[in-house]
Amino acid sequence: MTRFIFAFVSITSLFGAVSYGATPSDQSDAEASTIFGGKLPPDYRDWKLISVAHEEGTLNDLRAILGNDVAITAYRQGKLPFPEGTIIARLAWNYTPSEENDKVFGKPQSFVAGAPKEGVQFMVKDSSKYASTGGWGFTEFIDSKPVPQNALNGCFSCHLPAKASDFVFTHYAP
Amino acid sequence: MTRFIFAFVSITSLFGAVSYGATPSDQSDAEASTIFGGKLPPDYRDWKLISVAHEEGTLNDLRAILGNDVAITAYRQGKLPFPEGTIIARLAWNYTPSEENDKVFGKPQSFVAGAPKEGVQFMVKDSSKYASTGGWGFTEFIDSKPVPQNALNGCFSCHLPAKASDFVFTHYAP
Repeated sequence: MTRFIFAFVSITSLFGAVSYGATPSDQSDAEASTIFGGKLPPDYRDWKLISVAHEEGTLNDLRAILGNDVAITAYRQGKLPFPEGTIIARLAWNYTPSEENDKVFGKPQSFVAGAPKEGVQFMVKDSSKYASTGGWGFTEFIDSKPVPQNALNGCFSCHLPAKASDFVFTHYAP
Repeated sequence: MTRFIFAFVSITSLFGAVSYGATPSDQSDAEASTIFGGKLPPDYRDWKLISVAHEEGTLNDLRAILGNDVAITAYRQGKLPFPEGTIIARLAWNYTPSEENDKVFGKPQSFVAGAPKEGVQFMVKDSSKYASTGGWGFTEFIDSKPVPQNALNGCFSCHLPAKASDFVFTHYAP
């Protein structure tokens, strides 16, 4: 199966404080992102699994990448570029040692999803609306509220190295 | 939210070679497991995500725990014991450093799901059929074929420490 990649992290997550403005924006930077009408997709937690990952360092998380049906079908069929309407979500939780599991294993080795990281991140494909950022709109919700646009302006430049796979880093995990 | 636990690993995965026979079996140990009629549930990869984990040591994997709709509803409603028909699946992939992601992060820190581990493991709730193992039937498929029953006889004893959460180790990751 053709495999793609997607690492969905905002520049703020990656590098901490950064300078914004590298990416065109169709709204004031001070305003909240209006993707999805500024509302957290109500069913995102029901979406199917694309893959899982662990980020060390300051992120120190376990993460799951979920996709809506358009995304999952595209991944499984090896479709590139991703079709209009593709939505990919990144959930993350604190990387937490499990004493309970370790007791069963007889040694420390088990790490599970702890408290959820505050942000849930999305990229959505709309080639005309987001033509200036590879056809992808990027957004993040914290406590179900969209973050300001200026916190998202660096997302696309971070995804540029994945141009060959339509700016998506994550492989599908069969 | 009430959170439960589930670490789904066969004794063979946990400790390598072991002695079997600690758990009652209703069929010859030499025969393949007949749970699900000996057929891999065709839609398990579409099930919703319960949680993710990383096991170090000889397992060295990233894993996702998926559940059928009965399982997901029970988790979200905090239902214990899990209702009849609950099915929980454990998928695992090799724990694989991602050079591609590391380039974006500027340092080695990213680990992704590599090649899938050969076994996909399930536990299914049927209180009468599996009364002798806490109401749970355990099975594993390798290359879509059920493993021999004697490879599963240790599963329940491994799950005994999770008795308070109906023998399920995994927490739901919100």
